[in-house]
Amino acid sequence: MVGLDHTHDAPARSWVPGADGHPDFPIQNLPLGVFSMEDGAKRAGIAIGDRILDLPATRAAGLLSGEAARAVAAAEGGALNGLLALGAGPRRSLREQVFGLLRADGPHRDRASPLLHEASSCTLHLPAAIGDYTDFFVGIHHATNTGRQFRPDQPLLPNYKHVPVGYHGRASSIRPSGLPVRRPHGQAKPPHLDAPVFGPSRRLDYELELGVWIGPGNALGEPVPIAEAAAQVAGFCLLNDWSARDIQGWEYQPLGPFLAKSFSTTISPWIVTPEALAPFRAPQAPRPEGDPAPLPYLFDAADQAGGALDLELEVLLSTPASREAGLAPHRVARSNARHMYWTVAQMVAHHTSGGCNLRPGDLLGTGTLSGPEPDSYGSLLETTQGGKQPIRLATGEERRFLEDGDEVILTARGVREGFAPIGFGACRATVLAAR
Amino acid sequence: MVGLDHTHDAPARSWVPGADGHPDFPIQNLPLGVFSMEDGAKRAGIAIGDRILDLPATRAAGLLSGEAARAVAAAEGGALNGLLALGAGPRRSLREQVFGLLRADGPHRDRASPLLHEASSCTLHLPAAIGDYTDFFVGIHHATNTGRQFRPDQPLLPNYKHVPVGYHGRASSIRPSGLPVRRPHGQAKPPHLDAPVFGPSRRLDYELELGVWIGPGNALGEPVPIAEAAAQVAGFCLLNDWSARDIQGWEYQPLGPFLAKSFSTTISPWIVTPEALAPFRAPQAPRPEGDPAPLPYLFDAADQAGGALDLELEVLLSTPASREAGLAPHRVARSNARHMYWTVAQMVAHHTSGGCNLRPGDLLGTGTLSGPEPDSYGSLLETTQGGKQPIRLATGEERRFLEDGDEVILTARGVREGFAPIGFGACRATVLAAR
Repeated sequence: MVGLDHTHDAPARSWVPGADGHPDFPIQNLPLGVFSMEDGAKRAGIAIGDRILDLPATRAAGLLSGEAARAVAAAEGGALNGLLALGAGPRRSLREQVFGLLRADGPHRDRASPLLHEASSCTLHLPAAIGDYTDFFVGIHHATNTGRQFRPDQPLLPNYKHVPVGYHGRASSIRPSGLPVRRPHGQAKPPHLDAPVFGPSRRLDYELELGVWIGPGNALGEPVPIAEAAAQVAGFCLLNDWSARDIQGWEYQPLGPFLAKSFSTTISPWIVTPEALAPFRAPQAPRPEGDPAPLPYLFDAADQAGGALDLELEVLLSTPASREAGLAPHRVARSNARHMYWTVAQMVAHHTSGGCNLRPGDLLGTGTLSGPEPDSYGSLLETTQGGKQPIRLATGEERRFLEDGDEVILTARGVREGFAPIGFGACRATVLAAR
Repeated sequence: MVGLDHTHDAPARSWVPGADGHPDFPIQNLPLGVFSMEDGAKRAGIAIGDRILDLPATRAAGLLSGEAARAVAAAEGGALNGLLALGAGPRRSLREQVFGLLRADGPHRDRASPLLHEASSCTLHLPAAIGDYTDFFVGIHHATNTGRQFRPDQPLLPNYKHVPVGYHGRASSIRPSGLPVRRPHGQAKPPHLDAPVFGPSRRLDYELELGVWIGPGNALGEPVPIAEAAAQVAGFCLLNDWSARDIQGWEYQPLGPFLAKSFSTTISPWIVTPEALAPFRAPQAPRPEGDPAPLPYLFDAADQAGGALDLELEVLLSTPASREAGLAPHRVARSNARHMYWTVAQMVAHHTSGGCNLRPGDLLGTGTLSGPEPDSYGSLLETTQGGKQPIRLATGEERRFLEDGDEVILTARGVREGFAPIGFGACRATVLAAR
């Protein structure tokens, strides 16, 4: 596997209490984020177990040097854009030095201990100022399932296997995990009415996606070749592309989704780096017999050989009644990030192929990552077949779409024999009633 | 008319040479922008004739006070976002005080003269950092003309007269007038081929639009009522939504335009304020008999009575051969901003109706503002009927779509008896050959 080093050693241990065996943030992960404490000042941090390492304070204490110190300096001001812009070199140095600082035999435990804060007493923020947000549609099962509802005889449109289809999304309404999402009002035209009505959405849904953070970016008019596209990726997060299906169905022709999506998008606040994900790379699944080969600007042998991500994904749902009853959240779906018809590098190469410029801190969404089976569908639109087949919860409740008070939790996890499992941390939000 | 005061007096004169009778920037306009000189430092300015008033220097000289001084202070750093965020009060104070400073009998001519710079020796920049860019589709003739090419029997989709249709655009590739636009590569599938090809666009087009600058903005989850929507608008510009029709035709289903638009958008750099445009307000044209009434969240009597804009619009085209021959640019189209089926306030109210937050400095596009007749069509897609009916230029050349070296110039102008005409300044760019 490409990019493996001592920071991926499964036996590595940390002196930070609770870090070893932590489901998300053992010492092999070390994701980047932005947090604040009581004074409200935003600063860069790295998650380790249930704690957060204060990076500016670590640098100020003289515990980071060279490229790693430069990376932290670039993140001054409470947003990581400047750090992401530096690309892989400084990001790797930072990982290596923090790994050295936090490992069980690290020589500076006494000096580093005071720089750790309980995550539960911190507020996590968006890790970067998001200039532009683009959402793709690379989950082929999702594209097929949703297409079938509109076009039973032609679920996939003719361009799907040639073009990594995507569209511009709304950057201003992206929020970090934990903040609630309010049910939107909007126009919809139910089939039994002749004219549209305006009111709270009745078909509120989630979408299970990965987010992709852009690093250095490219100048306007200068496409990123596919062989260089992976170097543009600074990390990953979970992304819930909340969708109001009734608004979407009425508004989306001919220019695509707009208010059905722009009321809120929730992401997990930690940037899981390409370095941390190196053990979980996989070959891109071969295209089924008869599918067209990617056009040359979208084909790179190394990308095909190792550009996919083997990450276990889940959608969990808790309702007011299930919380009242003390029940664990219900697992609605279990999927995998390998269900992408296009790789992330292909998304980046395509996005820039006409000259469009990406900037550090831009965010891409993959589109919903459904698997082939109903228990792997990443949206209720698919799972309940547009509301026709409700799911039944342990409380005896049914759900066709989301109800007020429901909490949706997305998770992602890398698991591979011989490596320490890592996770993304939760991407969760509770639905508030419409105003 | 609402909002008229002494700054709109037609007889008002300025001591600035060339300002009186200037086609765009007489003393009645006073648009806001950001410029730099040799040292490269960006600063806020106001256009007057062929000159630019340096606003921070004017404030530093003690020539602005109170709210006007506060407005200029908010624009420190070379972007007007902070000024736009303040809303109408400080913006009006600034207009009034600069009007008093530059009018023929202004008492501080000696002190103000050194604060003016020749526009020709300045560089104009984007006036604000654009957080999100949304493009609407409110030109009903354009929607009809383009729809007819795809659906002769149903040019307008069923939602058009109920929903101010819009989509998210790309913010990173918006550039000010004067910078060239490079012909993009992209995927297209010509009708005679079975599979798509990748190469330079062969159907490059412009779109004649107005841009709308957002002022104070709204919090996520808090819609802007239609009666308060006009107060969200901080000003207007011209906008050329460059479009690659061959890429668009192949990529846009089902999620809308993406790379066909994101390679470049050109805007005029001056923000023409709602105050300057007060004389050019007009009633919204009554809806044709049989059209549905707007839903209540989109209806406001005052908006219907005076929310439209009576602005003359033009598209001019110059080619390398026409410049060689010393010919003036060819006028391809003449239209008017009144050809909007929805008002700007309706666009704002709709955009926020589901809770989506607008931020100061966000940009909205109106969509192409074609008129009903072929000589008023705002895109070549319409004018040449998708390339089937070329236009003939004075040089004897034909154009179906844009060729390398062509320069497209958009203009907008308010003309009304009893008032000084004002203009937006040019929105121009030349097409560079594909790389």
